[in-house]
Amino acid sequence: MSTTATEDPTGVWLIGARGSVATTAVAGCAAMTAGLHPPTGMVTETPAFAGAGLPALSSLVFGGHDTMECPLPKRAEHLAAQGVLPHGLPAAVRAELVAADAEIRTGGPLPGDTRTDEELISAFTSEISDFLRRRGLARAVVVNVASTEPAPPSAAAGPAAPPPFEPPPPGRLLPASSLYATAALRAGCPYVNFTPSTGLHHPALAALAARSGLPHAGRDGKTGQTLLRSVLGPMFAQRALDVRAWSGTNLLGGGDGAALADPDAAAAKNAGKERVLADTLGAVPQGEVHIDDVPALGDWKTAWDHIAFDGFLGTRMTLQTTWQGCDSALAAPLVLDLVRLLSRAHAHGLTGPRPELAFYFKDPDPGASAALADQYAALTAFAARLQGRGE
Amino acid sequence: MSTTATEDPTGVWLIGARGSVATTAVAGCAAMTAGLHPPTGMVTETPAFAGAGLPALSSLVFGGHDTMECPLPKRAEHLAAQGVLPHGLPAAVRAELVAADAEIRTGGPLPGDTRTDEELISAFTSEISDFLRRRGLARAVVVNVASTEPAPPSAAAGPAAPPPFEPPPPGRLLPASSLYATAALRAGCPYVNFTPSTGLHHPALAALAARSGLPHAGRDGKTGQTLLRSVLGPMFAQRALDVRAWSGTNLLGGGDGAALADPDAAAAKNAGKERVLADTLGAVPQGEVHIDDVPALGDWKTAWDHIAFDGFLGTRMTLQTTWQGCDSALAAPLVLDLVRLLSRAHAHGLTGPRPELAFYFKDPDPGASAALADQYAALTAFAARLQGRGE
Amino acid sequence: MSTTATEDPTGVWLIGARGSVATTAVAGCAAMTAGLHPPTGMVTETPAFAGAGLPALSSLVFGGHDTMECPLPKRAEHLAAQGVLPHGLPAAVRAELVAADAEIRTGGPLPGDTRTDEELISAFTSEISDFLRRRGLARAVVVNVASTEPAPPSAAAGPAAPPPFEPPPPGRLLPASSLYATAALRAGCPYVNFTPSTGLHHPALAALAARSGLPHAGRDGKTGQTLLRSVLGPMFAQRALDVRAWSGTNLLGGGDGAALADPDAAAAKNAGKERVLADTLGAVPQGEVHIDDVPALGDWKTAWDHIAFDGFLGTRMTLQTTWQGCDSALAAPLVLDLVRLLSRAHAHGLTGPRPELAFYFKDPDPGASAALADQYAALTAFAARLQGRGE
Amino acid sequence: MSTTATEDPTGVWLIGARGSVATTAVAGCAAMTAGLHPPTGMVTETPAFAGAGLPALSSLVFGGHDTMECPLPKRAEHLAAQGVLPHGLPAAVRAELVAADAEIRTGGPLPGDTRTDEELISAFTSEISDFLRRRGLARAVVVNVASTEPAPPSAAAGPAAPPPFEPPPPGRLLPASSLYATAALRAGCPYVNFTPSTGLHHPALAALAARSGLPHAGRDGKTGQTLLRSVLGPMFAQRALDVRAWSGTNLLGGGDGAALADPDAAAAKNAGKERVLADTLGAVPQGEVHIDDVPALGDWKTAWDHIAFDGFLGTRMTLQTTWQGCDSALAAPLVLDLVRLLSRAHAHGLTGPRPELAFYFKDPDPGASAALADQYAALTAFAARLQGRGE
Repeated sequence: MSTTATEDPTGVWLIGARGSVATTAVAGCAAMTAGLHPPTGMVTETPAFAGAGLPALSSLVFGGHDTMECPLPKRAEHLAAQGVLPHGLPAAVRAELVAADAEIRTGGPLPGDTRTDEELISAFTSEISDFLRRRGLARAVVVNVASTEPAPPSAAAGPAAPPPFEPPPPGRLLPASSLYATAALRAGCPYVNFTPSTGLHHPALAALAARSGLPHAGRDGKTGQTLLRSVLGPMFAQRALDVRAWSGTNLLGGGDGAALADPDAAAAKNAGKERVLADTLGAVPQGEVHIDDVPALGDWKTAWDHIAFDGFLGTRMTLQTTWQGCDSALAAPLVLDLVRLLSRAHAHGLTGPRPELAFYFKDPDPGASAALADQYAALTAFAARLQGRGE
Repeated sequence: MSTTATEDPTGVWLIGARGSVATTAVAGCAAMTAGLHPPTGMVTETPAFAGAGLPALSSLVFGGHDTMECPLPKRAEHLAAQGVLPHGLPAAVRAELVAADAEIRTGGPLPGDTRTDEELISAFTSEISDFLRRRGLARAVVVNVASTEPAPPSAAAGPAAPPPFEPPPPGRLLPASSLYATAALRAGCPYVNFTPSTGLHHPALAALAARSGLPHAGRDGKTGQTLLRSVLGPMFAQRALDVRAWSGTNLLGGGDGAALADPDAAAAKNAGKERVLADTLGAVPQGEVHIDDVPALGDWKTAWDHIAFDGFLGTRMTLQTTWQGCDSALAAPLVLDLVRLLSRAHAHGLTGPRPELAFYFKDPDPGASAALADQYAALTAFAARLQGRGE
Repeated sequence: MSTTATEDPTGVWLIGARGSVATTAVAGCAAMTAGLHPPTGMVTETPAFAGAGLPALSSLVFGGHDTMECPLPKRAEHLAAQGVLPHGLPAAVRAELVAADAEIRTGGPLPGDTRTDEELISAFTSEISDFLRRRGLARAVVVNVASTEPAPPSAAAGPAAPPPFEPPPPGRLLPASSLYATAALRAGCPYVNFTPSTGLHHPALAALAARSGLPHAGRDGKTGQTLLRSVLGPMFAQRALDVRAWSGTNLLGGGDGAALADPDAAAAKNAGKERVLADTLGAVPQGEVHIDDVPALGDWKTAWDHIAFDGFLGTRMTLQTTWQGCDSALAAPLVLDLVRLLSRAHAHGLTGPRPELAFYFKDPDPGASAALADQYAALTAFAARLQGRGE
Repeated sequence: MSTTATEDPTGVWLIGARGSVATTAVAGCAAMTAGLHPPTGMVTETPAFAGAGLPALSSLVFGGHDTMECPLPKRAEHLAAQGVLPHGLPAAVRAELVAADAEIRTGGPLPGDTRTDEELISAFTSEISDFLRRRGLARAVVVNVASTEPAPPSAAAGPAAPPPFEPPPPGRLLPASSLYATAALRAGCPYVNFTPSTGLHHPALAALAARSGLPHAGRDGKTGQTLLRSVLGPMFAQRALDVRAWSGTNLLGGGDGAALADPDAAAAKNAGKERVLADTLGAVPQGEVHIDDVPALGDWKTAWDHIAFDGFLGTRMTLQTTWQGCDSALAAPLVLDLVRLLSRAHAHGLTGPRPELAFYFKDPDPGASAALADQYAALTAFAARLQGRGE
C-alpha cells in the first residue's frame, strides 16, 4: 500500500526519545518496514491514505532528546520482558535501535542545571538542526512524548489570562516542554505535542508560533478512555438520553502512572477528558476521574468508566466500560501517523494549528468537533487535500 | 420546540398493543403531553427536528391488535410495580390508557384459529380501516411491537431464494407478523417493523409492498448492545485496530426473554447483531452471542460484551461493556419517533423502504451505513428534507 | 421460626434516627412483623439462630436522636420514591413510623450550640433513660447509624497514643459520636457503632467502657465492597496466589456519599477496607480506594474492585468485581441483627467488646479473624452460647 | 520450607502429558526446583504443609501418556510464545523437559485403533509399571489432565443407574479416561482426575476401585469461575441474601475451548458449576452457563458472572465478576499439590476417595462441603493428619 508514498528521508525528533512510547515507535517502525508485523493500529496505512503522498515508513529517520541514559536496545529489551514489545523484536531490529540511539542528545534542564531558558533553547535548536543537516533531511517533525509535567501555576490558577509577555524573559521561566517546542520552531520543524504538558500552549510562545509558518498539532494523545468517550458521548446525545454522571478510574503503572499520580499533572489530563464530555453532551455530568499509580500493572492500563443516564420517563440506566490496553502500543502508531501527516502538511505549505488532526487528541486545536466520527471525517478529508502536489 | 408540528390527529396502530413497549409508549406519550416528564429519549424532540413538520405528540391517537386480554391500565400498573414505569404514572394518565384500550382489537391467529391467511388479513384490514374512519384520521402508522416470532424455515435454510409466489396461497402460510403487515398496506398505512420478525420481509409480500406506494421501515429496534456495537465497531475500524473476537451475553426476563430463549427466535436477532460487526469491521470476528431468559430480571436487560483486539505489533487488548437498561423504556421513545417520521414521510409522498431511518434498527433497509454516526447524519438530513411542504 | 424468641419489649435507640438506614430498619421491621415481606437479609432469622432466645422482631420498640426535622413517615415516602423502600410500604406501616417518630429527640450539638460535652451527654442520657422508663423496657440497645464524622485529629496524626485522660475535660472536646456513646453507657445500654465514626473508640471513654459492664460492638457495618474483600482475600491467600494490587472505586450519592467525599471522613472508612486486605493477605497490596459522591445515584452504590494477582511462574491475572446495591437495604437488616444479638448478650450477662460479631463490621473488635467464613463460624458459635439461660 | 519433605523419588504419570497443563507442570516444577521462580500458586508450599512429609518438588519424576507427537521442549516454546510460560523458561529447563519427554508413551485409542478395552488397559498398565521399575520409584501418582471427553450416554440419560457390570466386557465400551484410570489402579498407583471426564466414575470400575486399596481424588480442577462461586455462594447464604439468578459466560481458546464447545463435553463441566451453587445456596438459581470457544484468546480465559439477588424488603441488587486468567498456570500448581498429597496419603496407607481434597475440585468426592473455607479447613486438617509416620 501507500504506493505513492515519498521515499525522501524524513526526520522524527522525539522529546523523551528513550521512553516507552518512543522506543515502541522506533522498534515498531523498523518491524513494519522489515515486514515482521502488519501495520495494525496505523491509520495512515489504511486505504483512505494511500494516495496522500505521506512519507514511507521506511523513510523515517529517528533521533531526539532525553534526560535518561538507558540505551534504546536495552530499553527495548526491558519492554519486551514486560510484554509491551513482542519477544524477539528487540534483537530483530537491533540495528535500527542502535542507529536511533546514536541520534539521541541529552535533554534538559537536568537537576542542578543553571542554564537559562535561552541557553537551553539554543542548545536544543542546534542539536535538532545538526540532525537535519547531518542526515540530509528535507524536514523533521518534533514530537513531545516525554512524561507529563505538572500543570503550570498560571493554568492552575484558573482562566485569568496570564500576561502576554514575549520574548521569554531572562532566566528560567518556561516549562521544559515549552523550551523544546521553541527549539522545534526555531529549527524550522513542525511540532506535535502528544502529552498534556504545556508545549506550544504557553502564551509566551504564541507570537513565535504564529510567525513561524509551521504546522503544529496537539495535544495529549487519545488512546483509551477518552477515545471511548468520544464515541459514547455522541451516542448518548444523538439518542437524547440524559447522562447524569460519568465517573472514571484509570489504573496504570510505568512512568506515566507515577507522573500522573501527581495531582497537578493529572489535572491537565483530566481537563481534556472532561472537555470531551462537555462538548459532546452539551453539559458536564457529575462524576470524577481518578488516575492511580499501580506499579504492578507496568505499562498496562485499565480504565473503568461508569455512566449513569436517564432514559424515557426518567428510567435510570447504566453503562460500564472496562478498557485494558498497553499504553505504548496504543500511542506509538498514532505518533507515527502524526509525523507522516504533519510532514506532508509541511511539504504542502500548510501552517498553524491543524484541527483536522483532532482525531488523535484529547484536547484538540480549536475548531474541531469532539465527536470521533466527525474527527475521522475531517481527517480523511485532510488526507484527500494532501493528495495534491506538495510545495 | 417543534413549533411547526402539525396538530392533525395521527393514528398509531400497534401490533402487540398490550405489551410492555406499547404500554410504555402510550403512557409516556400522555405523560409528555401533560408535561409530567421531559421528552428524554425522544430524538424527534431535539432541535434538529424542530422544523420538520412532524405530528405533535398531543395529536397521536393510539389503537392496535393484541391477543392478550389484560387492559392497558392494569398492564401499566404491573409495569409500575416492576419499576418500568414511574409510580403514579398509570393513575395520572389513566384516561389516555382507557381511551387507547378501547381501540384495541383481538389479534390472531389464536390457538385453534381455523381462519385462513386471507380471512385474517381481511379482519385486520377492516379493523385498521374502521379506526381511521371512526377517529377521523388522515393517516395511521402501523408498528409491530409484538413478541419476536421464530424465524421462518425458509430463512433458516440459508440464502437460497424461496419461490417468489403471490398472492398468498389459500390456507395459512404466512407468519402472523406478515399477516399484519399485509393488512397495514391494504389499509393504506405506513408500516414499521420494530422486531426481528418477518413482517414485510416475506417474499410473498414484495410485490404488494412495491405497488402500495407507502413508506415503510425496519427492522428490529436498536436499543442496547447493537447500539453500542454501531459506535464501537466504527471506532475500532477507524483506528485500524484488529478486532479478533467479539462475544456477547444478554440476560433479560419479561416476554422478550422467554421468546428469545427459543433458538429460532434468537437466530433472527443475532443475525442483526452480527451484521453490524461485519459491516463496520469489514470482517466477522470470532465470538458468539447468547440471549438468556432470566425471569428474575423482568424487563431489565443486562448485556455484556467482550471484545478482544490486537493493537500495534499484535499486542493483545480487550474492551468490555456492560449495558443495564430497561428494554421498554429504551424502545418506546424510538417507536414514537418512527411513527412521527413515517407519518410525515407519508404526508410528503415518500414511498418504499426508508434507509434514512437506519439509526433506529439493528437490521436496516438496504443502502444504509451500519455506523451510528453516519445513520444520525442521514436521519437529520431526512428531517431537513421533510421541512418542505408536505402533500 | 425463632419460636423461642422472647416477646419482652426491647428498645432500639438509633443515633441518626431519621436517616436512610434507620428509616429502613423501622419500616422493614414493621413490614416483616406484619408478614408483608420475608426476612431476606436477616441473618438472625435463619435456622442457626432459632434457639438463641433473641428478642422477637415484633418486640422491638424504636426511638432515637437526630438533628434533622423531617418526620419518619415523610422520610419513608422519600425513600420509596427513590426505590429504596417498596412503593406502598410507607403507607402500610404508617402507624409504626409515626410511633417511632414520636420517640425521636433532637440530637446535638446543633450549629451554634454552646452546651459543653457534659451538658450534651446529660441531656442525651436523660432522653434515653426516659425512653426505657416510659416504654417499660428491660433494656435498649443504642446504635449509631448517623452520617460519618471526619476522623479526629489524633487519629490523623498517626499511631502516637493520645494522652489517656478521663473524665472528659470541661468544654467541648469529644466528637458527637462519642457523646452519644457515653450517654448510652451511662443509661446502661449496650452500644453498637455501625459507622466508622469514633464512638466508643475515643481514649477518654476507655475506662468508662471497661467499668460499665455492658456489651458493645463495632465498628463500621460491612455491607458491600469490604464484605466481598473478606471472602476474596482469604481465597487468594488459601490458593497461594500473590495479590499485587487491589484498587477500588465507590460511587454513591445520598447523605453518605456527601459525607465521605470529605477526605477526612473517607480516611476512617478506607482504613477499615485496607485492614481487611492486610489481615487476610498478610501484606498490604498496591492500590487505592476512592469514594466519590455522585448525587445522581442516590442511595444506590456501585463499587468496582480491580485485583491484579500473580499466579504460577509469575503469570499476571486479574479479577474485577462490580457490586451494585442499595446501601440502606444492605445495612438495615444487619442493624436489626446486631440489636437482637447484643440485647440477648446483655440479658446473658456478657460484657465488653464482642469480637464474635466481627461478621458485621469492617473494623471489628480485636481478636476476630478478618475472613468472613471464620467470622460466620464465630457468630453461630456465639448464637449457640446464647441458648443457655439468660441472666 | 518443607524441611521434612521426603526426597525419595516420586513418579508423576500424566494422562495428556503433552498438553498445556502437563507442560506447565513439568516446566514449573523444574523452575521452582532451580530457584528460578517462587512457588506462587502452590498451596502445599505454604507453612500449613511444612511438616506433612510431602515429597519434595525436586524429587518428582515425570512421565505419561499422550496421543500427540509434539515433543515437550517444542510445546513449551509454543506456550512461551503465547505468554503462558515466561520467555526464557523453556530454554532454562530444557534438560528436564527432554527427560520427561523421554518417559511419554503413545496413548490411545488412536483413530482406527482396533484394540479392545482390555488390550489398551494392559498396554497402559505395562507402560506405567515399566516407568516405576525403570526409574526406581516407590510410587507414582497418575493424573488425568487430558482434554475433556464428551459425557457418556448413560450420564446424559439422567440419574437412572446403569447396570453394574464387571469386569469390563470384551470389545471397546469404556471411555478413554476410564481405560487409563483402570490401568493406574492395576499398576498400583493413586489416581487423580483433574478433568470432568468419566475416569474412575464409571460403574464398571467401582468394584476395582473399592478393592484396589488405593487413594484417589477428583474430579475437575477448580481454577476460576467455580473457585469464585465456592466463596461467593457461601457469602450470600451466610448473609441470608436471596440469589435469584446466577448467569455465567466463559470465553476461552486453546484445546479446552474447542473441546468444551462440544455441548456434551460442556454438560459435564457445567454440572459441576451448578452443583456448587445448589450446595452452597440451598437451591438452584435461575441462569445459564455458557462456554464459548474463542480461539483468539488462546489459553487465556475470561469468565463473567452476573448474580441477581434480592436483599432486605426484596430490593434488587447485583454482583458481577470478571475473572481473567491463564488456565494452565491456574491448573498446574494444583496438579503438583495433588500429586504430593495423594502420594503422601498412599505412603500413609490411606485408601479410597479423599473428600479432604475437595478444595481442588469442582465436583468433589462425596462427603465434602461445597464452601471453599470449609474445604480449606478440611485440607489443612488432612495435612496435619499426614504428619504422623508414613508406611
